Amino acid sequence: MATKKKSTTAATTKPSKAADPTAPPRKRRAKDPLDEVTLAAIKQTAAGIHDAILQHKRPELRTPVRALSNVSYDPKKGYLEIGSDKKVRTLSVSSVKTFAQTLKMMALSQELIKNDDVATKRDAYYQSKNWGDARFDEQPESDTVMDDIEALFSDLGVSREQLRFVPDQHGGAVAGELVVIDRDIETGELIEIDCTRFGSGAYAVPSWVEHLKFKTKAKFILCIETQGMFQRLQHQKYWQKAGCVLVSMGGVPTRSCRRFVRLLSEQCKLPVYAFTDCDPYGFANIYRTLKVGSGNAAHINQFFCVPNVRYLGLTPQDIIDFDLGKATHPLADVDVKRAFDALKNDPFFQNQKPWKQAIDLLMKMQKRAEQQALSLHGLNFVIDDYLPRKLKNPDAFLP
Amino acid sequence: MATKKKSTTAATTKPSKAADPTAPPRKRRAKDPLDEVTLAAIKQTAAGIHDAILQHKRPELRTPVRALSNVSYDPKKGYLEIGSDKKVRTLSVSSVKTFAQTLKMMALSQELIKNDDVATKRDAYYQSKNWGDARFDEQPESDTVMDDIEALFSDLGVSREQLRFVPDQHGGAVAGELVVIDRDIETGELIEIDCTRFGSGAYAVPSWVEHLKFKTKAKFILCIETQGMFQRLQHQKYWQKAGCVLVSMGGVPTRSCRRFVRLLSEQCKLPVYAFTDCDPYGFANIYRTLKVGSGNAAHINQFFCVPNVRYLGLTPQDIIDFDLGKATHPLADVDVKRAFDALKNDPFFQNQKPWKQAIDLLMKMQKRAEQQALSLHGLNFVIDDYLPRKLKNPDAFLP
Repeated sequence: MATKKKSTTAATTKPSKAADPTAPPRKRRAKDPLDEVTLAAIKQTAAGIHDAILQHKRPELRTPVRALSNVSYDPKKGYLEIGSDKKVRTLSVSSVKTFAQTLKMMALSQELIKNDDVATKRDAYYQSKNWGDARFDEQPESDTVMDDIEALFSDLGVSREQLRFVPDQHGGAVAGELVVIDRDIETGELIEIDCTRFGSGAYAVPSWVEHLKFKTKAKFILCIETQGMFQRLQHQKYWQKAGCVLVSMGGVPTRSCRRFVRLLSEQCKLPVYAFTDCDPYGFANIYRTLKVGSGNAAHINQFFCVPNVRYLGLTPQDIIDFDLGKATHPLADVDVKRAFDALKNDPFFQNQKPWKQAIDLLMKMQKRAEQQALSLHGLNFVIDDYLPRKLKNPDAFLP
Repeated sequence: MATKKKSTTAATTKPSKAADPTAPPRKRRAKDPLDEVTLAAIKQTAAGIHDAILQHKRPELRTPVRALSNVSYDPKKGYLEIGSDKKVRTLSVSSVKTFAQTLKMMALSQELIKNDDVATKRDAYYQSKNWGDARFDEQPESDTVMDDIEALFSDLGVSREQLRFVPDQHGGAVAGELVVIDRDIETGELIEIDCTRFGSGAYAVPSWVEHLKFKTKAKFILCIETQGMFQRLQHQKYWQKAGCVLVSMGGVPTRSCRRFVRLLSEQCKLPVYAFTDCDPYGFANIYRTLKVGSGNAAHINQFFCVPNVRYLGLTPQDIIDFDLGKATHPLADVDVKRAFDALKNDPFFQNQKPWKQAIDLLMKMQKRAEQQALSLHGLNFVIDDYLPRKLKNPDAFLP
């Protein structure tokens, strides 16, 4: 059949439409104020370069240094923050290709906004194949330039998603007391998505959430590590009993999951609680990333972390208080290494005494417990006992 | 704060509710005919054992042998099928613990159905800690017994999900011309989920889909490898232009994703098309698993594969026909190994000449292409050109 197919398409071996950044825009919805901010930022950056050239100066681009040495943690701000060190890229013979690629990437962003479209890193890489000498040969090159642009624009308060470069990952699943307001891409008509009306299913958060609005009477947002626990709480309509929004992170939350929770929490002034396994991965990878962001990408933490999240559980103390000993596992070497790293090298845990105590207790017990270990006391013990008991005293949650 | 928390819960260190399989059932919806079938199968299996004991015979459990040597492929049936070889487990001193665990697991399934609840493998493992001497010490033991039960009941046409043991994974994201009909767990009220009304988001398929019904005017189901491509087609409302249902598989489709597509395709008599990267992973892992299932778990393929799916793309011939040369990557060693395995060892590819030709062409070109390589010709080339051209001739799709 492969040969048959060949004959049907052989007459048109050349694609009928090549990439054309000047093509008329597709149908688009009303102007978004956020897009205007982004377009202004692109224009301002490009104008700086243009002006330098007109003045016979060498144009330059200043991006924050993306390294742990340029990261600090201020508990008042609540996230790992990028410092003021800048990398300056001046146009020269050796930098001309990267310089051109950066400008082409900015032009692509502008086109995406005008066409109300989005692109992934991969899309941008393949588009670059039409940029002549400025094309990328390998995707890691393209990713680096995009990371630089992200850092450059983060200084102007503009995120990569606002530039319309979106991740190739969805943003988790959501159920509960929430109406998400999105728009029809063609008509601009508002679409209300009622997250109480999913039966056993859920709302899959898109890769790109900047445009979403919310209506809710929920009292809190509960971010859950595993799909299994999320499914249990959803299946038993826990969100109705507790008046909350359930978010399934599926391990370390993706960019769009973190951004979704941040926007929802800010717009609706909702507290956020995290519910993960009691192990160093749950503390130092999942919770830490959700709360203060990542050290390696500190320039984006202003958009993506959820500084007001608090840790509902499981804690090492819960293993004792809820008699979970029979359902624990010994700490593996990788757990011990992670816990040690958190205590020794992580500015977040170093600043939080209750967390140091919790990790010390974990190391002393040499035991870890999964959130589903609560099934030891009955499949719905988590709903009937654990969560209600914990929620009586949110002030006691780990910070 | 950890210490503060301790003091607030110290007064009730013992959980207030232990696992109690005789606890009154929660609120539940109307009887489901499917549940009656499952309960009858459990009763039948248990009665066989009970009768043997009363007759002073040694009770035994017969499960299909789960090995590639007991798997065959019949193109007419359309999936990798388990053979008739059986493993017989007879109650003896050495098998008594596993025998007891199997029966306890069946009893747990019965309780889940009666309480209209579900459990993951992990839930079942932790529950077993209350089974005295029959408890599992490690989760792999528990998983093996569950796999045996799954094989045992597959002979009776009952899937693990019908036994209410559900995976710890969601089933992908869905958007387009489809109304999913689910039920409220408490009231039994039917809930209609309109998958045209998600804006940029989507419907997240639950871990467990047996109870879902559908309404659709779609002409086909399009199963997509990457979230990036799914998001593009969703963002541009491709499902409206083409009259289809979009399913984001996110790599190799999970059990519930495959089961969802299978049920939807069967109930609504819809053709299914797969759209993956042009590489051996896309062919032999993603597409093959979706279509004919897995060799290692052939006993479940009767429920989980989608025999009528056809391969819309990308194909090696597409790299030529759509002039994607600039956007290809060289085959890596792992690609070559996978392609070689498919040709030499896989009964599906061995039975499908067009696939052998396609993989031969790929090996000859020594190139692979990602589905997003179509962005080379414009971000929406896939919508404006590729998909319409391919869909003019579905008979030419790879089988």
